[in-house]
Amino acid sequence: MSFHARLTAAARTNNSWLCIGLDPDPTLMPPVSVLEFNKAIIDATRDLVCAYKPNLAFYQTFGPAGLEMLFETVRYIDGAVPVIADAKCADVGHTAAAYAHGLLQTFGCDAVTVNPYLGYDGVEPFLAFEDKGVFLLCRTSNPGAADLQGLRCIDPSDGQTERRGAELLFEVVARKALSWNSGDRLGLVVGATSPRELQRVREICPNMLLLIPGVGPQGGDLEESIHAGIDSSGESAIINASRQVIYASRGGDFPAAAREVALHLRDRINAVRQSVSLS
Amino acid sequence: MSFHARLTAAARTNNSWLCIGLDPDPTLMPPVSVLEFNKAIIDATRDLVCAYKPNLAFYQTFGPAGLEMLFETVRYIDGAVPVIADAKCADVGHTAAAYAHGLLQTFGCDAVTVNPYLGYDGVEPFLAFEDKGVFLLCRTSNPGAADLQGLRCIDPSDGQTERRGAELLFEVVARKALSWNSGDRLGLVVGATSPRELQRVREICPNMLLLIPGVGPQGGDLEESIHAGIDSSGESAIINASRQVIYASRGGDFPAAAREVALHLRDRINAVRQSVSLS
Repeated sequence: MSFHARLTAAARTNNSWLCIGLDPDPTLMPPVSVLEFNKAIIDATRDLVCAYKPNLAFYQTFGPAGLEMLFETVRYIDGAVPVIADAKCADVGHTAAAYAHGLLQTFGCDAVTVNPYLGYDGVEPFLAFEDKGVFLLCRTSNPGAADLQGLRCIDPSDGQTERRGAELLFEVVARKALSWNSGDRLGLVVGATSPRELQRVREICPNMLLLIPGVGPQGGDLEESIHAGIDSSGESAIINASRQVIYASRGGDFPAAAREVALHLRDRINAVRQSVSLS
Repeated sequence: MSFHARLTAAARTNNSWLCIGLDPDPTLMPPVSVLEFNKAIIDATRDLVCAYKPNLAFYQTFGPAGLEMLFETVRYIDGAVPVIADAKCADVGHTAAAYAHGLLQTFGCDAVTVNPYLGYDGVEPFLAFEDKGVFLLCRTSNPGAADLQGLRCIDPSDGQTERRGAELLFEVVARKALSWNSGDRLGLVVGATSPRELQRVREICPNMLLLIPGVGPQGGDLEESIHAGIDSSGESAIINASRQVIYASRGGDFPAAAREVALHLRDRINAVRQSVSLS
């Protein structure tokens, strides 16, 4: 079954388009081990999410032992819902293939985030796995995103440029993603912090799967993001939340506190999805 | 001492502007363990290089054990020459900080390669380490590099754009690197496969440290690259070679074979450096 189909199945089963970021940060975590922490969060939320998204930075920072924690975390989830490795990697072809093998085979993740700066041959090796997914960074959620992604661009390889005029870099990436998307394995990462840009991506890619981070501490508005990012099926936009869920409490009640926030976010997402489908 | 100063010191001591990529690939390696392999290559070449550059992809592909091999490899080099972690990472600020901590502190690398797509706040956390270096991807060595890096761009934040007209994306990145380069910690990655683009980057950044991969199997011409990338000091361009050195032989003589290729490359680089300084 394709990644997109597995993601949709999990979302329908749990009636949830919420993805939880598993980003262990010792300065924010309750005083338990990373693996205990992740397992408790997973046990408390696995029926409330469509996916988990561990970001590699937070595991690598612990050194080799951190990668062992990531490996054990993916094993613990055990296919209950898909796991998106947030690695934002990209490299020249034969090296990108090593990343793809590592994250999608060795670590057993179901999808991976990829940076588009190297162009198609830095993305292609990740798309070679029939049952896996790839999320290409398009418009990121950080304050400096526009430094590059907001440049006005002319794409000399695009015959339609004359007619359309210059577009912003993230729009060019969205357009390229359409043409790179063999076998419906490609989605886009678009931050909740810029709903106007999110809406623009949805116009360019009417049916593409969008992973939307940046609600919560980063300042993205949940309702506005779903309105801007949802497609006609209501099933092609997933919302990621990390810190506001997993660090809802630093006390012994952290699993219950995480569950409460996850439940609330899931219901808010569904309320907007419903209002859009009814309108 | 700053990274740039340590790199220059190692280059002068070994009279070498050659960096060797430590990229263990089981399909190309002789039948020894990764750690044995790396140690043998290091023993055979440590007096012939200015730096080593392990690419994380080739360690991550082995899972958690691979990262242990990377950790032990950096320990084994033990400051003899600087180690550049080729991770090509970039993320939103607080996550980029976790990558920086992991690679520069936990793993103890001296510098790291970073992808510019997220903008300044994805780069800044790596620049916060006083004695470490950062190489920003500018023009990569892969065939599809121009997909994004060759787009014609107008930078609305750059007051000089009117006068200069549109530039290619990698030129805009080179120009931004100039303004982001606090404390001389920032260098650029520019592939040997496109000497014209390399020359253009050198025009924009007359003194910036350049890391030049892509000679050898990727097709970059060594002499042409040095001519295009060298600055007036002759000390701000380092050439990376990986596969042609470390896989020079699959037999028991692989350390001696690697040494021979490294020696030859070092001498060819120095010959061009000398001819340029004499001309």
